[in-house]
Amino acid sequence: MDVGFIGLGRMGRAMAANLVEAGHTVRVWNRSAGPEIEGATRVASAAEAFRGDAAITMLADDAALRAVIVEGGLLDAPERPAVHVGMSTVSVALSRDLAAIHARAGVGYVAAPVFGRPDAAAAGALNIVAAGPESEIGRVQPLLDAMGAKTWRFGDAPERANAVKLAGNFMIVSAIEAMGEAAAFAEGHGVAGADLLEMLTATLFASPVYKNYGGLIAAKRYEPPGFTLRLGLKDVRLALAAAEEAQVPMPFASVLRDNLLDALAHRAGDIDLAGLATVAARRSGR
Amino acid sequence: MDVGFIGLGRMGRAMAANLVEAGHTVRVWNRSAGPEIEGATRVASAAEAFRGDAAITMLADDAALRAVIVEGGLLDAPERPAVHVGMSTVSVALSRDLAAIHARAGVGYVAAPVFGRPDAAAAGALNIVAAGPESEIGRVQPLLDAMGAKTWRFGDAPERANAVKLAGNFMIVSAIEAMGEAAAFAEGHGVAGADLLEMLTATLFASPVYKNYGGLIAAKRYEPPGFTLRLGLKDVRLALAAAEEAQVPMPFASVLRDNLLDALAHRAGDIDLAGLATVAARRSGR
Amino acid sequence: MDVGFIGLGRMGRAMAANLVEAGHTVRVWNRSAGPEIEGATRVASAAEAFRGDAAITMLADDAALRAVIVEGGLLDAPERPAVHVGMSTVSVALSRDLAAIHARAGVGYVAAPVFGRPDAAAAGALNIVAAGPESEIGRVQPLLDAMGAKTWRFGDAPERANAVKLAGNFMIVSAIEAMGEAAAFAEGHGVAGADLLEMLTATLFASPVYKNYGGLIAAKRYEPPGFTLRLGLKDVRLALAAAEEAQVPMPFASVLRDNLLDALAHRAGDIDLAGLATVAARRSGR
Amino acid sequence: MDVGFIGLGRMGRAMAANLVEAGHTVRVWNRSAGPEIEGATRVASAAEAFRGDAAITMLADDAALRAVIVEGGLLDAPERPAVHVGMSTVSVALSRDLAAIHARAGVGYVAAPVFGRPDAAAAGALNIVAAGPESEIGRVQPLLDAMGAKTWRFGDAPERANAVKLAGNFMIVSAIEAMGEAAAFAEGHGVAGADLLEMLTATLFASPVYKNYGGLIAAKRYEPPGFTLRLGLKDVRLALAAAEEAQVPMPFASVLRDNLLDALAHRAGDIDLAGLATVAARRSGR
Repeated sequence: MDVGFIGLGRMGRAMAANLVEAGHTVRVWNRSAGPEIEGATRVASAAEAFRGDAAITMLADDAALRAVIVEGGLLDAPERPAVHVGMSTVSVALSRDLAAIHARAGVGYVAAPVFGRPDAAAAGALNIVAAGPESEIGRVQPLLDAMGAKTWRFGDAPERANAVKLAGNFMIVSAIEAMGEAAAFAEGHGVAGADLLEMLTATLFASPVYKNYGGLIAAKRYEPPGFTLRLGLKDVRLALAAAEEAQVPMPFASVLRDNLLDALAHRAGDIDLAGLATVAARRSGR
Repeated sequence: MDVGFIGLGRMGRAMAANLVEAGHTVRVWNRSAGPEIEGATRVASAAEAFRGDAAITMLADDAALRAVIVEGGLLDAPERPAVHVGMSTVSVALSRDLAAIHARAGVGYVAAPVFGRPDAAAAGALNIVAAGPESEIGRVQPLLDAMGAKTWRFGDAPERANAVKLAGNFMIVSAIEAMGEAAAFAEGHGVAGADLLEMLTATLFASPVYKNYGGLIAAKRYEPPGFTLRLGLKDVRLALAAAEEAQVPMPFASVLRDNLLDALAHRAGDIDLAGLATVAARRSGR
Repeated sequence: MDVGFIGLGRMGRAMAANLVEAGHTVRVWNRSAGPEIEGATRVASAAEAFRGDAAITMLADDAALRAVIVEGGLLDAPERPAVHVGMSTVSVALSRDLAAIHARAGVGYVAAPVFGRPDAAAAGALNIVAAGPESEIGRVQPLLDAMGAKTWRFGDAPERANAVKLAGNFMIVSAIEAMGEAAAFAEGHGVAGADLLEMLTATLFASPVYKNYGGLIAAKRYEPPGFTLRLGLKDVRLALAAAEEAQVPMPFASVLRDNLLDALAHRAGDIDLAGLATVAARRSGR
Repeated sequence: MDVGFIGLGRMGRAMAANLVEAGHTVRVWNRSAGPEIEGATRVASAAEAFRGDAAITMLADDAALRAVIVEGGLLDAPERPAVHVGMSTVSVALSRDLAAIHARAGVGYVAAPVFGRPDAAAAGALNIVAAGPESEIGRVQPLLDAMGAKTWRFGDAPERANAVKLAGNFMIVSAIEAMGEAAAFAEGHGVAGADLLEMLTATLFASPVYKNYGGLIAAKRYEPPGFTLRLGLKDVRLALAAAEEAQVPMPFASVLRDNLLDALAHRAGDIDLAGLATVAARRSGR
């Protein structure tokens, strides 16, 4: 397929490379210079990327996506893609807006955010959460297959995929907080947090999220960050905003927000999200 | 070895049977009539069970353990076991008291609570968390091997094993709450909670705790209970008490306590702990 | 003074009337038809109100204030007021933006939100919280004196007055929540919540906020609303947003948010803010 | 009346002195040497104080009250008082137990905890919260009148007075937390917490609790303590225990518990309860 790819951050560059690898024709664009993607054609403007069989966006946040697509006027451009696959982690509200705007512009729109970090992206092992008209998803399924291990479909309304992504991220940050509190508790009773987490993540909690973040907490290794605490707060904020819209109290998310702010106030915004565990430790006097 | 086993609830009976199976001589006692354990000798009093190479207790809570061992005067009896292996989920404070009392009485004391439900107990697949003098644990290791898949050691002070058990249970209830909130959030955005949890527990959260409780929440199958919500509150209460003693703030545990009380106030004390998810659902108007 | 007054809701109409009463020349404008203010001149557009010695805005929220002043282009109009006194309860961020925009336009800007409900507004008994350049506040002090019992000054930066207003509203909603939880607790022990609150608000908590909201909770009289629960949520949301900006964890505010959402999910958005107490009652099974 | 008074701490000594002042015959006893109360007779044992027309206890906590009355066997002594007035701040559960024990012993029992600090006790200006059989309260009303400004009655079941006392203390600590968060929020926006609190406690929150604690927070004057933070935690713990018994979720109380533990972990247990505000400040990086 003829694909444009917008957004070449750590995730995007790996995803675009996998599209090339799978034999697709890929035009890439990034706001700043960005990396070279072997086998892909760098184009000079977002508009040149936003055309062809499909255009994929993998941008940092609502503001970036809105700036490029909406304020950039791409949907009013003479050439547009058949489908736009929005893979960024953005708000439910923006995704809903985009669905409406695309419908008016006659461009297909699929929301397809992903679970997985850069190494999973490089390995084509992402879990992709897709929602949108079934025919549109079907059309881009070969692209999703090139980037992910599996595509999980969540119905016709694109914003539902974003809700699922935010729910998942909320559960990840909750797991980190639970481990942080448990480790502080253990330390308060003379048990090394690392020993506690080693046992639990090898048994009851032997899953990727717990093993990964539990290992970082056990080692107190918060730099370099895989995903920053500040970005974790962004995602919790998006979850809380979507929860408010749907009138869903989420007391765990509220605790996460407060503790992430505590971390930021202690200059920990740029460490790894696992560093949320430092808050429980500090609050217990450690 | 010649072993006495006190407490033949759903867990205890399976554990005692595995001791018999492994070739140990087992005397069993239960406060009420209790089940028959094939190959074990039922004795008429706790004192007759509390002797031999080792005595194991697997009782419901602090009150039961204290009643049998301390108030029952077993440590002042003429015959006493070489080692007492306390496997009940009890408070850190009681375990600390028991360590002191046993030391004065010249009886070894090992705290060895377990992770795993009755089916894991029957399969000898428990994870056992043991703490106490290394020589004492060594002495009873063959018994622990007969009951569990693995013994995790946490040092000389017995109460540390109880702290680890409470930390683990706190993490289990936290996982349930996180899934409950995430499911309510998803439902608020038109995504079936079951679909969300199916995806997450097959991927990022593919661990026993998440798969088990996630499955129950997805199916809204809270009866019959594997482990009641009321018992979950007991464990959270023990964790909070131990946290207070060590001056460790645990905001997640506080949320759990409030939500478990909410469930109890809505007559859900006797459903499965997974039913904690009904609180997030109800609060969001579902 | 020659004053324009924009926004004739329940608060604004009373405040404008007091300006007339104090002898000022008052032009009034409201988006919808709005009430007649005796002695004031109704003008046909916001622009006609936004001129003279001072213009006062008393609008519902950020969106309304932004729509009228910024999107309405009033600061680019040929005639502008010497000072704009923004008395609406709006976000710290918007007030900061307005300060910058007004500075560029050469129009003075004072933020002066108020504490007090419509009856206090009618009596000229509001507490006014003002911030902005001292000379500007001085210029409009006669107007503030006509509307309020006292003006409390909070320095040069206008948005600080908005922060103070949000802090105060946060404390009001916190007081309601505390009374709601205390009443549910009392009822759980056989004491009528009304008896508890009567005693406490006559003694330790004998202040306007506690007496007013405590009386409503005691009587379970949540309709008609003096100030709706939905508006209370708006204010807590603004406080949380401003707290996030300043990296201040506010766990009480987080609880308020969750409980206000719980109330909304139970169709209580349009009852009085005192009705937040129904959440604690319901959660305890009452 | 002929009165015995047990417990001569800072509150008790002032209350006993007021009984002497009012013309009653007062025997006093304190576990340690304790102060001289002019006009009162010091007796050598609790038993000598626990007799006559009425005996009053004003002890530190559950343990002290239980030790003196229950474990001390006073209710089995040959001479007993007609009525025992328990004025200590103790648990609802203990008060309920005492009611049953006294009934069996044929001694009247009234629970009558107080609101007010030592200066209010000295001035006879306490607010007394009494519950118990009306005839018993009636009998001791002259004593209560000598010690307090007003007696508020809460029915026949003595423990209800203790529930009311705990509810009131919960509201006091909640007020402190709300002020602490509001002050941290204000400081985050460049407004001195002292300025914020001065305004609010002079207007909407012009009540004794807010003025007193608000003044301490504004001045950051946490020593010497009027009432220590550690004792505040004790009261919150009693409230939470009673809430659990009645199945009442109290999220504010949970936050208070966590933040009080945070303070203790930072060695603030012996400063004034107002120092709870240091937690919100520290968490925001101040």
